Amino acid sequence: MSREGIARSLLTPARRGSVAPFLVMDVMTAAARAEAEGRSIIHMEVGEPGAATPATIREAAARALMDGQIGYTLALGMPELRRRIARYYADIHGVAVPIERIAVTMGSSSAFILSFLALFEAGDRVAIASPGYPAYKNILEALGCEVVFIETTAATRYAITPAMLAAEHAKKPLNGLLVASPANPTGTMMTPDALKALVAAARDLGIRFISDEIYHGLSYDMPCATALESADDVVVINSFSKYYCMTGWRIGWMVVPESLVRAVECLAQNLFISAPKLSQIAALAAFEATDALEAIKAGYAANRAVLLDGLPKAGLDRLLPVDGAFYVYADIGHLTNDSMDFARRMLAEAGVAATPGLDFDPFGGQHAIRFSFAGSTSDMEEAMRRLAGWLK
Amino acid sequence: MSREGIARSLLTPARRGSVAPFLVMDVMTAAARAEAEGRSIIHMEVGEPGAATPATIREAAARALMDGQIGYTLALGMPELRRRIARYYADIHGVAVPIERIAVTMGSSSAFILSFLALFEAGDRVAIASPGYPAYKNILEALGCEVVFIETTAATRYAITPAMLAAEHAKKPLNGLLVASPANPTGTMMTPDALKALVAAARDLGIRFISDEIYHGLSYDMPCATALESADDVVVINSFSKYYCMTGWRIGWMVVPESLVRAVECLAQNLFISAPKLSQIAALAAFEATDALEAIKAGYAANRAVLLDGLPKAGLDRLLPVDGAFYVYADIGHLTNDSMDFARRMLAEAGVAATPGLDFDPFGGQHAIRFSFAGSTSDMEEAMRRLAGWLK
Repeated sequence: MSREGIARSLLTPARRGSVAPFLVMDVMTAAARAEAEGRSIIHMEVGEPGAATPATIREAAARALMDGQIGYTLALGMPELRRRIARYYADIHGVAVPIERIAVTMGSSSAFILSFLALFEAGDRVAIASPGYPAYKNILEALGCEVVFIETTAATRYAITPAMLAAEHAKKPLNGLLVASPANPTGTMMTPDALKALVAAARDLGIRFISDEIYHGLSYDMPCATALESADDVVVINSFSKYYCMTGWRIGWMVVPESLVRAVECLAQNLFISAPKLSQIAALAAFEATDALEAIKAGYAANRAVLLDGLPKAGLDRLLPVDGAFYVYADIGHLTNDSMDFARRMLAEAGVAATPGLDFDPFGGQHAIRFSFAGSTSDMEEAMRRLAGWLK
Repeated sequence: MSREGIARSLLTPARRGSVAPFLVMDVMTAAARAEAEGRSIIHMEVGEPGAATPATIREAAARALMDGQIGYTLALGMPELRRRIARYYADIHGVAVPIERIAVTMGSSSAFILSFLALFEAGDRVAIASPGYPAYKNILEALGCEVVFIETTAATRYAITPAMLAAEHAKKPLNGLLVASPANPTGTMMTPDALKALVAAARDLGIRFISDEIYHGLSYDMPCATALESADDVVVINSFSKYYCMTGWRIGWMVVPESLVRAVECLAQNLFISAPKLSQIAALAAFEATDALEAIKAGYAANRAVLLDGLPKAGLDRLLPVDGAFYVYADIGHLTNDSMDFARRMLAEAGVAATPGLDFDPFGGQHAIRFSFAGSTSDMEEAMRRLAGWLK
């Protein structure tokens, strides 16, 4: 090969590093362009609280800033924060979690990477629900795991049942199962009993269980159960991003079985060194910001009511009542078979940005769309007026 | 298998998730215990600036905190920060780097993960120098790459030469090469010409090149050259942790070839979402904190002089003059063939904590030790007195 030929061949990305972009990025780019042209756009595409991080949390960070050194912490996090997280499990769930089993992470992002590496070999088969959070698949595949989609529908509130798990496992054995409740993009939850039954089913089949609990705290009709209520031999991932309104702080945590602690600690030392120290200090204060956070959640509850009333009136009536998180996942199959085109037109013609279902579901996503209602109630009301006008 | 048997088997870590702990952690634990007992310990084991983050940087973060929302940023980072990093390359190195090629990362940690996934398939062979930063090996192996150590000695100032690279490649082809200058643990640097020659040699052999430049800014006798001066088709990783005294902020950056930008962006969206926003804002201010940072660096230069005078007087005279970073890597082969035992005794008997060479070098590390001189000059002077007394 010529020198130029070689030099050029250096530039192609590895196959495992070639992840498909999110379709919603196109919507966001188009929305930004429209706003730059002076148009009013209502943002229902971003999975991020519209509210600022509560002031008491930011003040705790400001005090730490004045105090001085912002250095590395222990790889598993500041002991005070790990202790406070343990107390959270005792207070909220009545579960005793030794602080040794708690690892503070860079949002849920590094927790996913650490848990996949600690639990799974390359080639292991890990089941996730479809529709689901698209990064699950992309991180698992980048790390060499085989992703097994279990298709879910509104019939089970988009949850994987023990029967579905057993059927998939019977086809070809699974090594892992990752579930989320409340779930993104569907806003649905598993009841405490359903979660417990699924944990037990996975254990019976020898399938390692990861519970994504990053939307805990945001439920409207039923309690958020943690998988730790059922078992010690599961990995639980949580985050300060959603309920605590701390997305940009990149801070979360995981709870791992005792026998994985050392592996996760050594992996974290090497892969991440430590989570951001200021964010750890702020996270400690987040547990005491309940009044402010519950007020924000009351806003989501009001928004939820606006959407569950307004969307059907606008003609989007194929949806489930939202159990948790801040998403409505609407079936738009009676209107289109191209959710990306629908999202583009809705943005261009109605000034409402939302996420096409194809980002969450390679099977049925072409006739679904996700609305995030984490913004202001007045924005949600305006969005309902725009959609009603656009779809009439 | 019985239910208990299955449940127990769920708890073993995956092979790829089983990373050996750093030996220095034992030293640090023993040091903390000694300090808890009231003993005075001088810390020369940590690779972290002793100085606080300069006040102007912290003030920028404090202003951002008061302003409000700390949300996700774009996956590749805030445009202002990427623009400022591009200006840094123009100002310091006279190299024009389009901002599109700059990705803001969570320290160098996420940059390593992103670059390894974007550049290498599982099974690819990546060469690194021994001695070297141990996380290179551990991250590469966790991500399925085969690590090829190229043993280096003081004879080449611990640098890999084009001849060494060609010889290793001839034995069995390499896919990648990762080098650092200034280097950890040796404090040695490649001259600009040596770096350029190695970049060219790698290109000729079709080997992908990663340049770890996280100690840039900290050199005492020669300029820090960036691999970007030689080539566009390399990956450069940098960080605000060392020169900018921002370890705990977890903020760094990488520069990638144009054709890898999209892959790195999509990987970053999925694996990390974005770097911490406050840290990005603080990093922007870090570029304007030159006076404070140069004063801290002058302290390192004074410390370096103290060690290069004091260590030989104490009997540790097998060392290279430090070119950069804040490390002295001393050959202690005339005193011991067990660097871990030496580090333990030095801590227990002299009250000086340092890192055993085995953490950096599986081959010759049993007769080497790394002293970090990122602390105060008075501490360094006291350490030299203690070592002189202990070793006499």
